[in-house]
Amino acid sequence: MDFNEQYDIYLKAVEKKIEEYFKSLNIPQKNVLDAMKYAITAGGKRLRPVLVQAAAEVCGADMEDAATVALAMECVHNYSLIHDDLPCMDNDDLRRGRPTCHKVFGEDIALLAGDGLLNSAFEILSDKSRYKSISDKALLKIVRCLSVASGVFGMIGGQVVDLECEKCNDVTLEELSYIHANKTGALIRGAVKCGCLCADNDKGNEYIDILDNFAEKLGLAFQIKDDILDFEGDEAVLGKPIGSDEKSGKSTYVTILGMDSAKEYLDKCTQEAKAVLEPLGEKGEFFSCLADYLLKRNY
Amino acid sequence: MDFNEQYDIYLKAVEKKIEEYFKSLNIPQKNVLDAMKYAITAGGKRLRPVLVQAAAEVCGADMEDAATVALAMECVHNYSLIHDDLPCMDNDDLRRGRPTCHKVFGEDIALLAGDGLLNSAFEILSDKSRYKSISDKALLKIVRCLSVASGVFGMIGGQVVDLECEKCNDVTLEELSYIHANKTGALIRGAVKCGCLCADNDKGNEYIDILDNFAEKLGLAFQIKDDILDFEGDEAVLGKPIGSDEKSGKSTYVTILGMDSAKEYLDKCTQEAKAVLEPLGEKGEFFSCLADYLLKRNY
Repeated sequence: MDFNEQYDIYLKAVEKKIEEYFKSLNIPQKNVLDAMKYAITAGGKRLRPVLVQAAAEVCGADMEDAATVALAMECVHNYSLIHDDLPCMDNDDLRRGRPTCHKVFGEDIALLAGDGLLNSAFEILSDKSRYKSISDKALLKIVRCLSVASGVFGMIGGQVVDLECEKCNDVTLEELSYIHANKTGALIRGAVKCGCLCADNDKGNEYIDILDNFAEKLGLAFQIKDDILDFEGDEAVLGKPIGSDEKSGKSTYVTILGMDSAKEYLDKCTQEAKAVLEPLGEKGEFFSCLADYLLKRNY
Repeated sequence: MDFNEQYDIYLKAVEKKIEEYFKSLNIPQKNVLDAMKYAITAGGKRLRPVLVQAAAEVCGADMEDAATVALAMECVHNYSLIHDDLPCMDNDDLRRGRPTCHKVFGEDIALLAGDGLLNSAFEILSDKSRYKSISDKALLKIVRCLSVASGVFGMIGGQVVDLECEKCNDVTLEELSYIHANKTGALIRGAVKCGCLCADNDKGNEYIDILDNFAEKLGLAFQIKDDILDFEGDEAVLGKPIGSDEKSGKSTYVTILGMDSAKEYLDKCTQEAKAVLEPLGEKGEFFSCLADYLLKRNY
């Protein structure tokens, strides 16, 4: 199947799950639900839920179950974006071309909407009635994978070092790599691992380390590209002002390496990610195309 | 066994788990770990972990496993306290006689410490290596129970209505009851339910509704007592200034009912909570003493 068609299937599957989930929520607190929904329906590439489903599919998992796990993954991603945008953190006004959650709903509701999405992720993963064939054991492993990726050992650990480094001017390449390996990398790796765990079979066990290794390199390439786009991107396509990293004095792969070397590094990481996929043969094709797609993206 | 001795055993068991957990965390981000630990080691009554263990014990669960589940419960409780104290929420400077987390570590680290504790709760619940005898099925049910109690259907739902009601002057008794049934009640009920689920047996299934009903009434009594203490308490014992509810124009059981009626209502709820325990016979004794203890507490 064509890469774009496949990507679109995964994207639509998770967006259907998001819609169904918010339709099913029936509580009187409309504003916090609106804030959660506002954040999670802002579009975006849906990279993490796509990775969950792609990994699940090559391992032979039930794809309806995988889409539900992908929904939980996207809840965690959007919880982190809402909290990251808050005034006490990055203090961002725009995300994906729209005002950030706290700009629309206020800081208090945005904080709780983030908290709500994180709790929802685990509520979704632990509700057996949502799944057709996945075992308790596999779901518990997925809860573990996601909570480790999202917690102090993963995403939060990266955010903390990021905050510390904002206060100093001489961030090294090693520090920057540490930040991104955790802040964005941990959840991208968590996505493919959760996908493999959905399958709950030998294939899943066989592929999990390969795809984890791939996702590690893909996550790095993804971040380098983000940093390049902050210099060279089109504001209308990006949905946020360009040059914001430079303006805020933030260290990025471009400021540390320079543009030419950053582009070379991006190419190198993309090639390395693709090379890791070799043992998967034809089954690695979607992931290989995904690495190229992310290399060439303009948003 | 004497009630106080029993309470102390549960209290020490969870404090030991807290200490072990933070000793085991080995990441370079010392400040976020310090903030998490600062919040969770501030003492307090440890009511929720005590309830987990007491419910687990009457159902015949492994008590080492129950103490680990109690640790996860206390992580969730402290995540909610850190976020609740933030400037965009209640903007509190003092908690349990000490500066609040964001006063010591800054808002950004406090936000992430709260997030970290919530993720840690699910990481602890999903790590099979921490448990001796509990099944995957039971752990998954506990994850579900805790995430529902803590999320938009529970605690967060109550917080949102609380924020809304702060903006209006004519809060009704019904609205106040709704807020507390969710904001504090949901997690107190979640605690006894998680305790019963630890047992993963017929006794657990038999007792879960009884103890849930008890916890609902206990949670209400707990909140009424809190409101009374805000008027009549001793600042040195409470660890926070008294009269803060009145000063901020906050509606409480005392402002709505008046002090005499609030005290009558407290007595009534405590008696009702104890009456629910009848089917448990002798096994209900600890819970009955707990209701009296909370009625008489001065902090």
